[in-house]
Amino acid sequence: MSFFDHDRKVIAVDMDEVIADALAEHLSRYNRDFPDDFPQPLTLANLHGRRLWQAVPPSRHAALDAYFRNDDFFRHLAVMPDAPRVLQRLQSRYEIFIASAAMEVPSSFTAKYDWLAEHFPFIPTSHIVFCGNKSILRADFLIDDNPRQLGAFHGEGILFTSPANVNVTDYRRVNNWQEAESLFLR
Amino acid sequence: MSFFDHDRKVIAVDMDEVIADALAEHLSRYNRDFPDDFPQPLTLANLHGRRLWQAVPPSRHAALDAYFRNDDFFRHLAVMPDAPRVLQRLQSRYEIFIASAAMEVPSSFTAKYDWLAEHFPFIPTSHIVFCGNKSILRADFLIDDNPRQLGAFHGEGILFTSPANVNVTDYRRVNNWQEAESLFLR
Repeated sequence: MSFFDHDRKVIAVDMDEVIADALAEHLSRYNRDFPDDFPQPLTLANLHGRRLWQAVPPSRHAALDAYFRNDDFFRHLAVMPDAPRVLQRLQSRYEIFIASAAMEVPSSFTAKYDWLAEHFPFIPTSHIVFCGNKSILRADFLIDDNPRQLGAFHGEGILFTSPANVNVTDYRRVNNWQEAESLFLR
Repeated sequence: MSFFDHDRKVIAVDMDEVIADALAEHLSRYNRDFPDDFPQPLTLANLHGRRLWQAVPPSRHAALDAYFRNDDFFRHLAVMPDAPRVLQRLQSRYEIFIASAAMEVPSSFTAKYDWLAEHFPFIPTSHIVFCGNKSILRADFLIDDNPRQLGAFHGEGILFTSPANVNVTDYRRVNNWQEAESLFLR
């Protein structure tokens, strides 16, 4: 893949909730610290159509925000199933960029960079983007769980299913990386 | 400026040698640490047409690289003359993104972010991009001192003069921010 390779279609791929399971870590820290908020620990199923912030008492919002600012939060996230295998396959046909809205959480830069190096070593650092508004990305496709970012993006948005976006109908949807594999390599 | 403002032309602006004087800091550290390499301290004029790496003995390259990895290198750089005033004026007519190839020096993320917050507080974090290959930027213009990045970029490249690029003739050139102001707001 050369620096000037403009021929292949470009796919930009979000990190949190798409290749990195930030929500599971968030939920786990919340349940650990506030075991008495609900009769049972909060689960992904409880979030159907809602962000975590909408599912917990407003008095917990500051705590949810603080988890993100913890230096190690983004360093040890679980990898979304099949993401490394499928992205490596997609690289044979597409130019793959990882594009995270990391500017929202500046303390996450190093952890996110190191996490990518560990789990996606086949992505060159030239193809990693930490940004804010994804309107700045020049790509043919953006795979993202955030409808707001897909709305700002100028190519074709592909909505990666996460609990918060299950009711969104404005974009082509993939529920997991196997479906993304079929979509792009069929 | 709304999240979905797609109407205004977009200008992406590089950091080092365009709004931040990384070269002056680099030169100053080099002259401080290796005063005996040359009869006189190395100056910007000595670099005419060359990068700093090409102007010093190869035995010093590791030292030059190491300066970049120092956490505070990018935190205290001088601001290029007129850059804040002109960029703030340009914001009234254009959408301005700051786009740095920070992935080449991951240790620079926090310093660059904090430096921008100090000197360019009018740039929202949604409009800051740390990337590698600038082919990923969707912008109408890129103001950059690096011909390689302008070559990868898909919009119109504007070459910001730095000592290393004085012989490059492939792009429209601005020698300073006053010239950029005239070009974009004439």
